[in-house]
Amino acid sequence: MRAAGGPFKISLFADLHFGENAWTDWGPLQDFNSVKVMSTVLDHETPDFVIYLGDVITANNMAVANASLYWDQAISPTRVRGIPWASIFGNHDDAPFEWPLDWFSDSGIPQLFCPAVNSSYSDSPKRVKISMPGEEECDFRGTHRTELMKKEIDYNVLSHSKNGPKDLWPSISNYVLQVSSSHDRQMAVAYMYFLDSGGGSYPEVISSAQAEWFRHKAEEINPDSRVPEIVFWHIPSKAYKKVAPRFGVHKPCVGSINKESVAAQEAEMGIMKILVKRTSVKAVFVGHNHGLDWCCPYQNLWLCFARHTGYGGYGNWPRGARILEIMEQPFSLKSWIRMEDGSVHSEVILSS
Amino acid sequence: MRAAGGPFKISLFADLHFGENAWTDWGPLQDFNSVKVMSTVLDHETPDFVIYLGDVITANNMAVANASLYWDQAISPTRVRGIPWASIFGNHDDAPFEWPLDWFSDSGIPQLFCPAVNSSYSDSPKRVKISMPGEEECDFRGTHRTELMKKEIDYNVLSHSKNGPKDLWPSISNYVLQVSSSHDRQMAVAYMYFLDSGGGSYPEVISSAQAEWFRHKAEEINPDSRVPEIVFWHIPSKAYKKVAPRFGVHKPCVGSINKESVAAQEAEMGIMKILVKRTSVKAVFVGHNHGLDWCCPYQNLWLCFARHTGYGGYGNWPRGARILEIMEQPFSLKSWIRMEDGSVHSEVILSS
Repeated sequence: MRAAGGPFKISLFADLHFGENAWTDWGPLQDFNSVKVMSTVLDHETPDFVIYLGDVITANNMAVANASLYWDQAISPTRVRGIPWASIFGNHDDAPFEWPLDWFSDSGIPQLFCPAVNSSYSDSPKRVKISMPGEEECDFRGTHRTELMKKEIDYNVLSHSKNGPKDLWPSISNYVLQVSSSHDRQMAVAYMYFLDSGGGSYPEVISSAQAEWFRHKAEEINPDSRVPEIVFWHIPSKAYKKVAPRFGVHKPCVGSINKESVAAQEAEMGIMKILVKRTSVKAVFVGHNHGLDWCCPYQNLWLCFARHTGYGGYGNWPRGARILEIMEQPFSLKSWIRMEDGSVHSEVILSS
Repeated sequence: MRAAGGPFKISLFADLHFGENAWTDWGPLQDFNSVKVMSTVLDHETPDFVIYLGDVITANNMAVANASLYWDQAISPTRVRGIPWASIFGNHDDAPFEWPLDWFSDSGIPQLFCPAVNSSYSDSPKRVKISMPGEEECDFRGTHRTELMKKEIDYNVLSHSKNGPKDLWPSISNYVLQVSSSHDRQMAVAYMYFLDSGGGSYPEVISSAQAEWFRHKAEEINPDSRVPEIVFWHIPSKAYKKVAPRFGVHKPCVGSINKESVAAQEAEMGIMKILVKRTSVKAVFVGHNHGLDWCCPYQNLWLCFARHTGYGGYGNWPRGARILEIMEQPFSLKSWIRMEDGSVHSEVILSS
C-alpha cells in the first residue's frame, strides 16, 4: 500500500478484547466503548492503514462456536471508513472458553445464546439461535486461527492480512507487506513484517522456524538492507525485559505508563538475534501488556509497546492508540500516542 | 446388572491415560503395558463388572481430532472378555492438546499422523490418514465428553455408561446403576452412583446442580435408605484432605501408598453434605492421585482412592486395581487391591 502523497500513517489497535461476557450487560458495553475509541482515533488521525495487533477478541470468554462474529465487530470501525488494515494474532484470539467456577454453584449457568455457526457471514439473514446446552452449536472450544483469518480475508477486500506459510503452522499470521513510494509504486519505502507470537491454543513463542522464515525472506527481498524494516507481533520477547525502565519512563525510553512487569514470551528461539543483525530493522511493536506504552532502544533498533485500545481486557488505564508515521524522502519513522480524549503524547523518532 | 449367584465383584481401572505421545516409541508402549495390567487383573479376579474411573485417555497429549480411538483401546481388554462396564470422566479425557514448547525450537514439529475423524468406528475400512498441518483433521482441540460417551455407548452393547441428564451439562457422566439380587432381579442390592467431577474443558468441580440431582434421585428410588449406595467420581473432594493420613497409612485408614498431597476439586458445591446425611451411602471411590491408594473413614462413610492402573500419566508406583466385592445377604462391601504382579493387599471392610 502507499500514501496519497504525504507521509504514510499507521494506527495500531492493540488488545481490543471484543466479545467478553456476552451474557452480562458490561461485556457488550465494553465493545461499544472500544468502537468509540477506535472511531475517535481514526477521525483525528485519518491514518492510511490500521494494524490490529492481536487480542482482537477474548475467545476464552466466549461461549460461542465461531468467534468470527466478534472479530468482525472489532474491524468494523476501520472497514466503514474505507481504511485498509492488517491483523495478527494474540494469545486470546483462539483460546477455548474458560467456564466461570461460579456457574457451578447455586446460581447456575446463565441462559446462553450461541450464535449459529457462520451466522455473521452467511448469505441467509443474520440470526441468533438459542441452542440447548450440549448441542454442537455451543462447542466453546475456540475458533481456529486459520478459520478466523479465512473469514477476515474472504469477506473483506480492505484486509491485507495473510494466513502465512503452511509450514509455520500452528503459527498463522506470518507475512510481509510493502509500503510503496507515492511516486513509484514499485519502490519500497519500508517493509512491515508481521509475526504470530503464539499463545491461546499453543505456546507463547516465536518459533525457530518463524525466525528462519523472517531471515530468509528479508535476505531475499531486501538483500542489501537498503529498505527499512518494521516488525509487529503481539507478545513482547524476552529482550523487552532487558530494556524495561524502572519506576516511571525515563530517557532513553519514551512513553507515559510503566505500570507492570513485561509479560514476555515463554522462550527465545532466535528471532531477536536475527533482528539485531540487520541494520535495516528499525523497530518492533507489541501489545499484550495493557499497562505499558513505552519505546526503548535495544542495540540498533527500538522495542515499543502499543497502547491498550480496547475496553475489553484487564486494566483501566486511559485508552488510546500508538500512531506511526513513515516519511519517504529522507526516510524517517516517527511515533506518538493518540488518546481517546483526543490528546497526544510520547512523540518519539524511531529512525535515528 | 447382577452376579451369577455369588458375590458381585467389581474392578476399578483408574487413570489409564491412554494415547500419550503417539509420535514417540514410549507412548504406545505405555498403552501396551496398561493393557497387560488390565488383562492380569481381569484374569486373576474375573470380576462381574468393570468401572473406568476417569482419565481413561490423556487428551491433552493427543494430536488428534477424535480421541475415541484411544478410548476404545482402553476398554478393549474388558470388552474382549465379555465383561460389562461403566465409565466416568476425568480431567484429562476431553482436554485440548498441549503443544510441547520444544517443538518450536530447532528440532521442529515431528511428523504427525492424524487419524481421520471417526476412523476407528467408520463402516469403511480402518485407515490412517496423513494430514497436512492446518487441515481440519488435525484440529487438536479435544473431543467433547458427549462425543466420547456417544461413541462408547453406540458401539458397545456391554457398556452401561450414560450421557446423563442434559441439564447437568457441561458435566456428562452422571447416572445411577442398580446391582440386583441374584434371586430376584427386581430387588436392588446396591445402587452405584456415577458423577462427573469435571476438569479438562471446564472446572474441576461437582456442581450444585449435580449434588441436587443426586439428592433427588436417591430420595426417589431409595426413599427409606434401605439399599446401600456406593459413589464413584474421578477427582477427590475437599473432604479427602480432611481425612488424609500423614506419613504412611495407619489406622483407621487402610492402604499401601501415601506419597502425595490430595489434589482436590476446586470447590465444594454441596455433594459431601448430602452424602453424609444419607446413612445408606457406604463409600466414595476416586482416582486422580496416582500416588495414593488408601481408604479412610469420614463420618458415616468411607473415602477411598482406587489404585493407579495405567502406565500412562505421572508416577512409577507399581500398577494395580482396586477390587470391590458386594455380598448380598447379609450386605457387606469388601475391598482390596490386586497388583500387576498378581499379589493382593490392603483388604478392608467398608460396610461396617
